[in-house]
Parts: sequence; structure tokens; C-alpha cells
Amino acid sequence: MNIGSDKVISRIEIDSFGQIEVGASRYWGAQTQRSLQNFPIGNEPMPRPIIQTFGLVKAAAAKTNMALGVLDSTIGGVIVQAANEVFVGELDDHFPLVVWQTGSGTQTNMNANEVIANRAIELLGGDLGSKKPVHPNDHVNLGQSSNDTFPTVMHVAFTLKLHQELLPSLAAFAETLQFKAEQWSAIIKIGRTHAQDATPLTLGHEFSGYAEQINASIRRITQSASELLMIAQGGTAVGTGLNTSVGFAEMVAQQIADDSGYPFESATNKFALLAAHDGVLAVHGSIHVTAMACYKIANDIRLLASGPRAGLGELALPQNEPGSSIMPGKVNPTQCEALTQVCAHIHGNNAAIAFAASQGQFELNVYKPMIAYNVLQSIQLLTEAVASFNQRCVIGIEPRLTNISANLQQSLMLVTALVPKIGYDQAAELAKQAHKNDTSLREEAVKSGVLSAEEYDKWVRPELMLGPL
Amino acid sequence: MNIGSDKVISRIEIDSFGQIEVGASRYWGAQTQRSLQNFPIGNEPMPRPIIQTFGLVKAAAAKTNMALGVLDSTIGGVIVQAANEVFVGELDDHFPLVVWQTGSGTQTNMNANEVIANRAIELLGGDLGSKKPVHPNDHVNLGQSSNDTFPTVMHVAFTLKLHQELLPSLAAFAETLQFKAEQWSAIIKIGRTHAQDATPLTLGHEFSGYAEQINASIRRITQSASELLMIAQGGTAVGTGLNTSVGFAEMVAQQIADDSGYPFESATNKFALLAAHDGVLAVHGSIHVTAMACYKIANDIRLLASGPRAGLGELALPQNEPGSSIMPGKVNPTQCEALTQVCAHIHGNNAAIAFAASQGQFELNVYKPMIAYNVLQSIQLLTEAVASFNQRCVIGIEPRLTNISANLQQSLMLVTALVPKIGYDQAAELAKQAHKNDTSLREEAVKSGVLSAEEYDKWVRPELMLGPL
Amino acid sequence: MNIGSDKVISRIEIDSFGQIEVGASRYWGAQTQRSLQNFPIGNEPMPRPIIQTFGLVKAAAAKTNMALGVLDSTIGGVIVQAANEVFVGELDDHFPLVVWQTGSGTQTNMNANEVIANRAIELLGGDLGSKKPVHPNDHVNLGQSSNDTFPTVMHVAFTLKLHQELLPSLAAFAETLQFKAEQWSAIIKIGRTHAQDATPLTLGHEFSGYAEQINASIRRITQSASELLMIAQGGTAVGTGLNTSVGFAEMVAQQIADDSGYPFESATNKFALLAAHDGVLAVHGSIHVTAMACYKIANDIRLLASGPRAGLGELALPQNEPGSSIMPGKVNPTQCEALTQVCAHIHGNNAAIAFAASQGQFELNVYKPMIAYNVLQSIQLLTEAVASFNQRCVIGIEPRLTNISANLQQSLMLVTALVPKIGYDQAAELAKQAHKNDTSLREEAVKSGVLSAEEYDKWVRPELMLGPL
Amino acid sequence: MNIGSDKVISRIEIDSFGQIEVGASRYWGAQTQRSLQNFPIGNEPMPRPIIQTFGLVKAAAAKTNMALGVLDSTIGGVIVQAANEVFVGELDDHFPLVVWQTGSGTQTNMNANEVIANRAIELLGGDLGSKKPVHPNDHVNLGQSSNDTFPTVMHVAFTLKLHQELLPSLAAFAETLQFKAEQWSAIIKIGRTHAQDATPLTLGHEFSGYAEQINASIRRITQSASELLMIAQGGTAVGTGLNTSVGFAEMVAQQIADDSGYPFESATNKFALLAAHDGVLAVHGSIHVTAMACYKIANDIRLLASGPRAGLGELALPQNEPGSSIMPGKVNPTQCEALTQVCAHIHGNNAAIAFAASQGQFELNVYKPMIAYNVLQSIQLLTEAVASFNQRCVIGIEPRLTNISANLQQSLMLVTALVPKIGYDQAAELAKQAHKNDTSLREEAVKSGVLSAEEYDKWVRPELMLGPL
Repeated sequence: MNIGSDKVISRIEIDSFGQIEVGASRYWGAQTQRSLQNFPIGNEPMPRPIIQTFGLVKAAAAKTNMALGVLDSTIGGVIVQAANEVFVGELDDHFPLVVWQTGSGTQTNMNANEVIANRAIELLGGDLGSKKPVHPNDHVNLGQSSNDTFPTVMHVAFTLKLHQELLPSLAAFAETLQFKAEQWSAIIKIGRTHAQDATPLTLGHEFSGYAEQINASIRRITQSASELLMIAQGGTAVGTGLNTSVGFAEMVAQQIADDSGYPFESATNKFALLAAHDGVLAVHGSIHVTAMACYKIANDIRLLASGPRAGLGELALPQNEPGSSIMPGKVNPTQCEALTQVCAHIHGNNAAIAFAASQGQFELNVYKPMIAYNVLQSIQLLTEAVASFNQRCVIGIEPRLTNISANLQQSLMLVTALVPKIGYDQAAELAKQAHKNDTSLREEAVKSGVLSAEEYDKWVRPELMLGPL
Repeated sequence: MNIGSDKVISRIEIDSFGQIEVGASRYWGAQTQRSLQNFPIGNEPMPRPIIQTFGLVKAAAAKTNMALGVLDSTIGGVIVQAANEVFVGELDDHFPLVVWQTGSGTQTNMNANEVIANRAIELLGGDLGSKKPVHPNDHVNLGQSSNDTFPTVMHVAFTLKLHQELLPSLAAFAETLQFKAEQWSAIIKIGRTHAQDATPLTLGHEFSGYAEQINASIRRITQSASELLMIAQGGTAVGTGLNTSVGFAEMVAQQIADDSGYPFESATNKFALLAAHDGVLAVHGSIHVTAMACYKIANDIRLLASGPRAGLGELALPQNEPGSSIMPGKVNPTQCEALTQVCAHIHGNNAAIAFAASQGQFELNVYKPMIAYNVLQSIQLLTEAVASFNQRCVIGIEPRLTNISANLQQSLMLVTALVPKIGYDQAAELAKQAHKNDTSLREEAVKSGVLSAEEYDKWVRPELMLGPL
Repeated sequence: MNIGSDKVISRIEIDSFGQIEVGASRYWGAQTQRSLQNFPIGNEPMPRPIIQTFGLVKAAAAKTNMALGVLDSTIGGVIVQAANEVFVGELDDHFPLVVWQTGSGTQTNMNANEVIANRAIELLGGDLGSKKPVHPNDHVNLGQSSNDTFPTVMHVAFTLKLHQELLPSLAAFAETLQFKAEQWSAIIKIGRTHAQDATPLTLGHEFSGYAEQINASIRRITQSASELLMIAQGGTAVGTGLNTSVGFAEMVAQQIADDSGYPFESATNKFALLAAHDGVLAVHGSIHVTAMACYKIANDIRLLASGPRAGLGELALPQNEPGSSIMPGKVNPTQCEALTQVCAHIHGNNAAIAFAASQGQFELNVYKPMIAYNVLQSIQLLTEAVASFNQRCVIGIEPRLTNISANLQQSLMLVTALVPKIGYDQAAELAKQAHKNDTSLREEAVKSGVLSAEEYDKWVRPELMLGPL
Repeated sequence: MNIGSDKVISRIEIDSFGQIEVGASRYWGAQTQRSLQNFPIGNEPMPRPIIQTFGLVKAAAAKTNMALGVLDSTIGGVIVQAANEVFVGELDDHFPLVVWQTGSGTQTNMNANEVIANRAIELLGGDLGSKKPVHPNDHVNLGQSSNDTFPTVMHVAFTLKLHQELLPSLAAFAETLQFKAEQWSAIIKIGRTHAQDATPLTLGHEFSGYAEQINASIRRITQSASELLMIAQGGTAVGTGLNTSVGFAEMVAQQIADDSGYPFESATNKFALLAAHDGVLAVHGSIHVTAMACYKIANDIRLLASGPRAGLGELALPQNEPGSSIMPGKVNPTQCEALTQVCAHIHGNNAAIAFAASQGQFELNVYKPMIAYNVLQSIQLLTEAVASFNQRCVIGIEPRLTNISANLQQSLMLVTALVPKIGYDQAAELAKQAHKNDTSLREEAVKSGVLSAEEYDKWVRPELMLGPL
């Protein structure tokens, strides 16, 4: 940095509130520094995907302004260079602000403007904090407002994370489940409804249901994520586009599309995108559904693997670590637990986001940083918990065939196969007698005289109870 | 009914648990009666759309079974006739069960089976309760289980209500908002961000944002509702289709499609549809988003109509009733209040449904009646609250032009128009001085010497601040 | 009623908005009628406890106003008489309004004022609708506003329902659980942590934990309910008490206390009670905790009773009804299902109430009817679902001793008893070997040479593993 | 550390799963290392208050075991010393695990056992990883299980944070509000109900309502926090206390009380405290209520400060930073925004915790780390956001007296003062005429002939409308 002396440990930055000291090694300016001092709340830094995406969007805006002829190409060029450094994470340390700040994210937008301006000044050999020749508002923020930029950054960051992280993680999970479904298509086991013994199905059937849940989740997330491609950039302060140039909105959207690889477009109505975040809530809603689906799957697997001696004992999970500090040899379904904790947590995030989404007033919703934080947390946690669950648990699950077979054979619900032969009422009587007498169905069937042993053996065959006849 | 004597006030019905007395005038049977006695919980009857849709589905199943040759056509014919009576609501009084029963809805499925069987018996001149010649399980429930029928009924009932009630109500609302947006496209007003004065926009702009929120809501609900077209019928007890005939699942789906007018199809994976209700949660998620959008709109309108003397006073709402029991002449935004209460309530319903959706165990989710109740309540409440809000409030809103104009003219944020001329920092100084001195921007501008009065009048014109330049 | 002719089927009622027709047999007046027409939303009538408690509060207000000398005793007397009819439910049919109305409940307050006024007029031989000699506002509502009356009614109604219904239901449940805990104090069984086999405890221990959960719930509800004893009556429109007489607030609170039997007091700060409902949310929060506790208990019992052949099979639940329309002889844990559905629903109600509680603006929270509806629904549902679960399930549960014993004996976690003898690491090795080889602990212990068979038999005794040594 | 050579960068640690490499400079052992590798999920480290409180609890357990004579005093002494280092945060860097791990927190308990053991070994000159002479399970974890230790740590950590951070922050906030209430007790202003003009009150009244909300919140949190004083320590694996010494539970609770300064006691029923977290949910419920209360207050203040020119304009908030990147001179209610975002977030945390609290199975709830994370996040965020809001906003609020007076004087709701004189109906007519004609109440009153100008001036005096007469 262009600092005159080793002894300088701070410099003066100026904004409309006056002067303020900033650490000399920092690219940020007065407004960032004020926010640092004004919001000593929590340990949650503004999520890095938001910060880095600011780089992408600021670069796109500068390119567009240059193309429109409203930004000098020298200044624009160094803005693009500095913004790209933000995008790739090189300047992460210069974004110290937390989530719990102004609800428009203005302070993080200004943090981006200030860092890019100072870094650009530095690239041009100027003095940090001088705002010359690159001004954070007049140049870096040219044609922009926090109110359109922050929601644009949200949409872009979410899109990148969904497509590059969550959806691939879910796809890998679905693939494992589908593989298991096929691998285990011949393992007949007892079904359970109401947590009570029911008619048989295959272990493959069970996992095919799980696979379908995840595949449907992928479809829903993909569908809802398409809404995010409509961006607010160009709406500026209230959605009208004041202080942008004609064409800016469309061109910057195209630039963002080109630079990100996703087909972003300028939203036709920007008022709604500043004042509300319905589309974001819809996206998180689809993540929420996915979390509830994962919960069911992980809880089922935990229960099917219960035991090893006094549980259902139908599945053996990979053993990854000792399970107890007091019970030697205990192994627990810890990956199920990590995932179900994440899923329950996402249930909470959805409530928080929905509450926030409803609370826009007039032209602006001022819950943007909190919404962004929750959405990105949900994406990351679900991505990583699903990946870990998939790799460290599901892939390695083995059926415990002896137990599966024993559970199946003694089931009273095999009686259902007799309904087409002897009717519901007589079949019910057989099952009740066997339950009461702790005998087998076959024994009661023969004793009842309703059917012969031969008929029983011909009609009651689990392998014939797996579909329509 | 075929009752021998006026003196008979009850008859005996029988199930696998034995005999039980049922009111002689009731079509229901033993299992319904047991449920009535076993679940004295709450005042919430099973929603009528569920009951009536059971009629549609039972008729379709009987038609399909006849076509497949597994159901006698005489018996099938009267089942269809009785089921149609259920569908049109004629037998509503014979469905006394509440929501809070077994989680599979088995008791309501049996209620339908029993009512249809007894009514069919009656049509054939038989004795109620005799199960002859029409048996509730062996004939009415033929090829069905509660576990596939109840979720099928949920999907069909939700589809009908969404397409016939909620979506039309939202469409009418969006139309009104769009009309207002166009009608008021020339009324320039102050924008507000952070609830603080901001740059101008038109009243039409504001309402265009609302219209966009509702139009997007309609798109989301329509999209998510398409999932409901995949139905579980034919999966029977655990999803395998045991005790159905080959082809039943596909044929019954086609029959339901024909009879309902919506293109239902047999789901390729029925395990997931019995054991989870992810798609239903996704649909409610889109309703939830809509509710949060409506909340924002109704709350904005309430605040813009605040006053009449000491509020923002930019909108005049229709006056529908006296507002206060103690303050004479008071009129309140009561339609906003009804709608926002409904929206907040739907926020709760989403949490309940999500929780329930996650709690399936093995082959069955046993929260079906509660999920159905909440989804149908949300649909009805939002349909009707939006319709009332639209008709009794939004359609009749009038702008209060004097207030709108006064609020606009005195705004300090018109200074934003000067940024491209004098830069952010000097513009900020003008606004701060005017605020501090309680003067006008123009006064401070001229006093500052930064620009002339002529320049000010040329550059600061709200009508030129409504879009890009 | 004082109606001149059988032919009269409607009469004219008047309010500040003018004339409106009302059914001749109805006691309600113009404002109620307007609300009926203006809010065709949903099927949820204003809860009867709210309506009836309005009777109690209106009677108390009239008595107080008479005592203060501001209300004529003839008029006051008939107001008290009519209000008492409301309190005991005789006039329920004259309260047709739904929950989804103005958020202050003004229309229901006016409904009460109108019904009481007309009924009082009738008692005095006057003409319905004449407002003479009893005026709904000037007499029945004297010294009151909806804004203080509705929250007072909420507090009183909730207090009555909590103390007379929910707490007794929970107490009976706790008593059963405690009884079972004692009855089963000698039945040693395997413990399960992480759904995996763990060290033993008694079945009594398990149920003592459940009993403790419910007893703690009772303590919490009782504690939080004490807040409801502070009432807003006397605050009138905004909390100041305008248009009440000095002393009214304290005297009416005492009167309500006398008439209800609960020690209500006039709140020292009424602004908070009109503008927010924090105390109500706190009460519902304690109901929410109770619901989550009941959920855990009911879900445990469902899982412990899973089977009958292929589950954990440690408990046998009472069989109340056939469980399946397709699987003969199936019996399900239906009371667990009803209760867990209620509990999940209450989770949603808490989210709705909390959202609403946060949304007061200035001097009033306008979510009162919706909050009241949700709180009273939670109270009723939990009261009745717990009572049914207690009576139809828990009381009749029997341990399945053979299964309990088998599950215990084969557990590998009995190895924990060896930790003080041979250390964690060696004990872990034994358990792992037994698991790997599908052998018994004892077999592996002896084989290992670490301890003798005699030592094993002396040290590993489940009956000695139930507490500290 | 006792490391033979600078070149050693890793060492071998061993657990029942075998050997694993650990960084040489780390005190943690095999189980921590496995968890690090097995749970690469999220950025949320186990909260530091949990880690540090583990130090307090482990020290107390060692002291107790020494007192009971089951732990050698040399070993116990260094355990206490090492644990104290954990308590004061010196060893924070040795606790690398994240929240999303096993649901019992076993891995963090083992992390504590391993770090303390290795540090103690080091203090005694032994070899890290040797487990000699201090064994993580046999000595540090003596008489403990994760299942009782983790919930004990939760209770202790929450207690410390509530009493040392949240409650003081709320108390300071309440004090400011109370001060404002007194300071502004003579500033008469218009009341607003339904966001519409209502009868007057003082600005002090408004702030007294806020103060009461916070004071009640403090009472509720204090009350619910008392539940946390009952701790599970001594219950070990399933609540029975297996492998503790008689007296351990009570003595360790006393030790923790002594060391922490809060009167912890051994819970009489430990089964409930391992298997459920109802008391924790109750505590968070009281935090949730507080958050909803703060939401209302902050939102009110934001709206009362709306403007500066086109809003309600009754309050002036301190100006802390520039508010907009595009609108020069704009200042926003940013502290309100930070606080309301925190409050909405806590709404979500409550949903997550409640969900998790319901999901215990059998003897253990395995959502402990996630619950702890959410509770501690809520405590910290609310503590700090309230403190910032108090210090940077509320303390510096000034009334804008000109606007307050203008809003009051033109109000039509002053008509309420006339009700006792001329009745509700005539008063309503006056207000309606004035509203319709845009005139003053006084003008319409005189014109109506119902009362004279003198009577109006005598009766309609805001200063007489602030309480009962």
C-alpha cells in the first residue's frame, strides 16, 4: 500500500459525517469504520459469498458504465481489477462487518465501494482515503444503490451456491439412494405403518422412496431457484432507476450473466424486489422441504439401525468413531444426528426468513442481511451435512439379513394376502387369534378350518405380496 | 331408510372388535362409532372438502374395479351412486369424525366406506349394518387402503380448492392492483426506504410492485400445485399395491382425472407419497410465501392510510363500519387487519405442517388429518380474506392528493437528482443543512453557491426522477 | 321478544353509519350485522369462552358503574341480568361473528354491547333496536373500550380454561405416569441412547422421567398463568383510562375477581397490555413446551410398543379399534397419533401467536381475535388430547415382560459395569468383540482372560446397574 | 509441551477404533481428531461458553471425586489445574469441533477429556497421547457421561450468560425507557390505535409501556432461568447414576455452585434432563417473548421517527452514520433495524429449539449441540443488539415537539371527551362531519348547535384526557 511511513498506523477517512480514523493497512473507509463501531453485535460476519459476489457485481457495473460512456475507462479499469480481487476472495480481510447492521446492507455495500475505491486508488498510485481519483460513491457505486445492489448480490450468491454446492450434494445423495434401491431390490422385509408391523415390501422399495424424496427436492429447488435469475440491479434507491443511464439495468444483467455463467436478467418490476423477498422465501421454502425430507430419511435409518441387540436391527451403519465416553464399545448413528440437527435448524431458519420477508415497509425490506445470512447458512449446512451423511453413512450401510428375515417371517400382517380369498373379517379374526395366543398365522389358519395348510402356503407368500396381482 | 319401526333408535353394527350401537338414522358403522367415542378432542370436524372428495375417489375406485371385472356391476353401481351423494355433500351429516384421530385418516376412510356401504345397501333394499350385499371393506374399499386413499384425497381436494378458489381470488386481487397501478401512474409521491423519506416514485409504481408480488405468488402456487397431480392411489398399505389388480393404479388415476377435470396421474413411486408429504409442504410453502406477500401489502396500505390527521395520510380507505366502541367517528383499516391476522396465522400453519411432514416413520406418515386440516384452512382463509380485502378495501381506495403532494414537495431526498451534477458529497451537505435549519433544499442550494436557483429548478424535478436518464 | 307481529322478520338497527336490517329474532344490532356482512372469512366462530367471558366482564363493569353512581340501577340491573345470560351461554346464538374481523375485537365487543342492550331493553319492555332505555355504548360499554375489554376478556377466559381444564387434565396425566413409575419400579429393562442399546434402567425410571416432564409443565403453566391476573380493564382506548371514573379500574378488577373466583387485579401499566400481548405469548410458550414434552412421551410410547412381532415390543397398548381398512387384525397406537398431531399443531400455533405478538403498532396490537383463537384452541386440544391419551392409552399400558427381559439380557452395554474394574479401553474391546462375533459379553470376557466367569457374574448384574455404588 | 524434537509435527493418539495422527501441538486426542474428520459441516464452532464451562464442570467433578476418595489427588490436582485453564479460555484453540456433530455432544465432551488429560499429563511431565498417568475416560470423565455432562454444561453456561449478560443488558434498557417515561411525562401527544388517530396520552405513557414490557421480560427470564439450576450431573449414561459414587451427584452440584456463584442443585429426576430439554425450551421461550417485545418497541420508534419531512416525525433519533450510498444526507433508523433483525432471527431460533426439544428418543435427546448453539446465539445477539439500541439510539432520542403538538391539535379523536356530555352517537356525528368537511371539531361542534364554543373549550382539553375523571 501507498503508505508514507512505517510509523503510520492509522489514516483519516472522511464521509458526510466527518473524519474518522481507520487502520492504515485497511482498504475500508469511513462508513465501514463507523459501522464497525456502531454494531458490536454477535459473531456472525457478513457471509463470504455475499462479500465475494459484491466483487462480481461491482465489476459488472463498472464494465457497463464504461460501455455506456459514463465512466472513464482508466478509473473503470482499476475498479474492475479491484472488484475482481474481491470476487476471488483476496480482499476478504477488508470486510469486517457483521450481519447485524442496517437492514438494507448499505454498510456492506459501502464497505465494497470503499475497499474497491481505495484498492483502485492504490493501483493508480493515489493516496488511500483521498477518494481521488476513484470515489466510492461517484465511481464505484455509479448508477447503483444499496437497495438494488444488495438484493442483486443475494440473488447471484444464492444462485451460485445452489447450483455449485447444494444441488450437486443432493444429486450425489439421490444417486446413492437409487443405487441402494436397485442393489436391495430382492431383499424382502416387513413394512411398518404407524410404527406397527404391516405388509411386506423390499428394502429397495424403502430406499426408492427416499430417492424419490430427494429427486423431487432437487426438482423443487431447481424450479424455485429460477426466480433468482431476475435481478433488481438498475432499480437504484426505490425501484425507479433514478441516476442510472438508460439501458444500464439490462446491460448490467447481461454482464453479470456473462461473468457468472448463469442467465440473469433484469427484472421487469424492481419495486417488488427491493420491498420484498418473496422469491427468496420461496427458494428457502424449497430448501425447508428438502430438510424435512432428509429428516425423515435420516430418522428412519437411525431407527432401522437401532440395536445392535435390542432394536429393529435391520441395517448396519458404518462405524466411524467411539460413541460414548462412559459406555465402552458403543457406536451411534452420529451422521444421522448431525443431519437431523441441521434439518431442525433449517426449520427455524425458515420461520425467521418468513417473518422477515413479511416486514418490508413501503419501498424497502430492511431485513436483507439477516435473510442472506440464514439462506446461506441453510445452503451450506444442508450441502455439507448431506454430503457427510451420504459419504460416511449411507454409502456404507449394510442390511442385516438375519434380522430382516426373522422380522418378516413372524409378521401377522401377512394375513392381508388372504383378504381376496377369505374376506377382511375372517382374516382379521385369524390375526387376532395368533396375536392373542402368540402363535403363527399358519397355525391359527389351519386350526380355524377356514383354509388348509396347503392353501395357506400357496397364498401367503411374501414374495407375491410386493405388488398388484 | 330401511328401518322397520319408528321405535328403533339405534341398531347394532359389527367390526372385528365386536358389536356396537349406532344411531338408527346414521349411515355410519362400527368403526366410525368407535372413533366418535375414542376421540373426543376439539371442535374441528374433518374438513368437508376431504369428506366430499372421498366420494369422488370411492366412485372412481368402484368404476375402475368394475371395469377390471373384480367388482359386481350391481354392487358397483350402487357404490358409485352412494359415493356421488357423498361427493355433492348430501351425506355430510354422516361424517361426524374430527381431525384429531388416527394419523392415517383410517377412521375417516372407514367412515366413507361404511356410509357408502350402508347407503348402497339401502338403495338395494338391504338392512343397514348387515354388510350385505355391500361390504365396507371387501367392496367399497376394494383394492384400497387408507394409506393410499387418504393422501390421494388430500391431493385431489387441495387441487380443487387451489384452482377453484384460491387462485381465482388471487387473480382478482392482482387485477385490482394492476388496475390501480395503471390508474395512478401519474401520481408522483415520495418514496420511503427504512421508513424514511427517499426519492420519488408514482403511486402506480407502488401498486405495480404489489401486483407483481401477487402475480408471482400465483405463478408459484400454480407451479407447486402441479405436484399434487401425482397420486398415491394403488399403493395400498405400504406402497407396493398389494391386493390391487394390475392396471388399477393407472386406471383409477385416469378415472379421477375424468371425473374431476384435472389431469391426475398415478405416481411412479408411491412409497414416498405414503411415508412423506413433501409435495404438500411445498404447496403450503407457496401459500406461505403468498401470505407473507399479502402481509406486506396490507401493512403498507394500513400505514399509507394512517391518520386521518396525524398519519401519513396518502390513501383513503373505504369506510365500512364504525371503528371504536369508545371513540366516536373513528374508522379503522379493518380489512387490512383481517387479512394480516390470516397471514400471521398461516405462518403458524406452515410451521405445523413442516413439523408434521418431517415425522413420517418407515412406510407411513401419520399426521395426515392434521396436515389436511391446516392446508385447507390456509386455502380457505387466504381465499376469503384476500377476496374481502380486495372487494371491501383495495377497489375503493382513493389517493389523498393534497397530502401526497405536500409530502413530496418538502422532501429532502430530491437532492439525489443533484448527484450527477455536483457529486454525492456536496449533495449530502445540502441535505444536511436543510434538515438542520428546517429549510428547503432550494434555499440551501442557492445559499451554498454550488448551484443557482435556475439550475436547481431545472435539475430537481420530481417528474424527471422516475427512471433512468 | 317484544315483537309486534309474527310477520316481522327483520327490524332496523342504527349506528353512526346509518340504518341496517337485522333479523327480528336476533338481539344483535347494526355493528354486528355490518361485521357479518363485511367479514365472510373462514369457518372459525369467535371462541365461545371469549363470548361467555364477555358476559362476566360486562356484568362486572355494570356493577362497578352502579357502585360508582354513574349508572342508573334499573338499567344496570338489567344489564347485569342480560350479561349473566351471556356468561352462562344462553345467548351464544346471538354471537355470529368470526375470528377474522377487526384486530381489536371491537366488533365482538359491540356484539356483546348490542346483545346485552337489546336483551336488557326487552327485559324492561322496550323496543329492540331503539337503544332506549339501554344504549349499547353509553350504558353497556360505559367506561370501557374494546381496547381494554377485549384483552381483559382474553386474560379471564384463558385463566378459567387453564385452571379448570388444562391443568386438571395434565395433573391426571402426571398422576397416571407417576403411578406407572411406582408400579414398574422393579422391571429392569435396557436403556437406549441415540436409539442404540445402552445401560439398564427400570421401566419405572422411564415413566418417572415422563411424570417429571409433565409435573414441570404444570409448574410452568401455573407460573406463567399468574401473569394473566393483571388485567387491562380501565385503560379504555389507549391505556390512560379516559372516560372511566376514578377507582373504576381497581373496583372492576375486584368485581371480576369476586365473580370468577380468581384473584384478578388492575394492571399498574395498561399501555403495555393494550399494545402488546407478551404475557399471553409467555403463557402459550409454556403450553408449547408442554406440547413438546407430550410429543416426546407419546412418541416414545409408540416406539416402545412397536411390533407386535417386528418392533421393540416392550409395551402393549390398549386396543381401542381396528387399525387398518386393508390389513386385517392390525391395531395401531392411535391415541399417540392424535396427541402427537395436536402437539405438532400447537407448535404452529406458537409461531402464529409470536408473530402476532410482535406486530403491535403504537397504542394497540390488532391481532387480538387471532391470538385468542389460537390460545384457546391450544388449550382445548391439549386438554382433551392428553385426557384421551391418558384414559384410553396410558392407564391401560402393560409391559411385555418376555420381550423386556430378552432385550435386556443380550445387551452389550452391560459392559459398562466393568469399567470401574478393568477400565474403559479393555471394556470397549470386549464389547466390540462380542458385537463382531455375535457372541455374548460373558463369552468374550472369559475368552479374553481379563476376568473370570465368576467375576463376570458377580460384576455384571443389571440389578446393580441402576444407580451409584 | 513435552515434544522431543522440533521436527515432530504430529503424534499418534489411540482410542477404541485404533490409532490416528494428531497435530503435535494439539492437546486433543483421537476422538476429537476423528470428529474433525467426520463432520466437515458448517462454520459454526461449538460455542465458547460451552467449551469454557466444560472446564468449570470437569474441575468440579475432579474435586468431588477426590473428596470421595475415588481419584488420586495428584492426578486430580492436575486435572483441576488443566480444567481451570479451559474455563478461563486459555485452551480455546484446542477445541476445534463444530456444532454439527453427534447429538449428545459426546465428541465435545471427549475433546474436553482429551485436552484436559493431555494438558494434565504434560503438567506431570508425561507423554502426550500416552493416556498416562491421566486417562481421559477413566480419570477426567470419572463418574461422568456425555449424557449428563453436556446438559449440565448447557445449564451452567446458559445461567452464566443470562445473569451476567442478557439480564444486565435488559435492565439497562428498561432503565433508559423508564427514565424517558418520567422525563417526558408532560409531553401530551396523539395516541394511535389501528395506526389511526386516537385519544391522547403522553409520550411518557408510551415509553412507560415499553419499560413495562422489558421489566416483565426480565421477570420472566429470571423466573424461567431458575429451572436451569437443577442439573443432570450424576445421572451418567441414562439417568441412573451408574458408575458414580454415592453422593457424587449432590456434591458435584454443590461444587459447581461454589465455583460458579450460582446455587445449582442436583436434579431429583435426571431421566427427564437427559431425554428432554423442556426447561431449556422454556428459558428460550422467555427470550423469544422478550424478542417479540423488543420488536414492537423498535418498530414503534422507527415509525414515530419516520420522516424527517413526510413521516410521523414525532421522534428524532441520534444520527450515527450516513444512511444511503445513493441518497445524500439520508439518515436511517439503523439501530432499530439491527435489533428487529435480531428479534426476527430469534423467532426462528425458537422454532428450531422447540422442534429439537420434542425429538428425544427413549433415554436421550440427541439435539444438544444444536440447542446449545441456538440458545447461546439468541442470548448473545439479544444482549448486544439491545445494548447497542439502548446506547446508540434510545438514550439519545429527542421529541420533535412542534410535530407532536401539531399532530395532537388537529386530531378528531379529541371528540371522545364529549361522550360523557353528549353521548356516543352525537359525538360520532361531529367527528364524521369534521372529517368530511376537513374542518376542526370545534367548528363542527359550534355549527351543530349541540354545544357552545365555551363548552367545547372547557370540555375538550387534551390535558384532561389523560386519565379517569
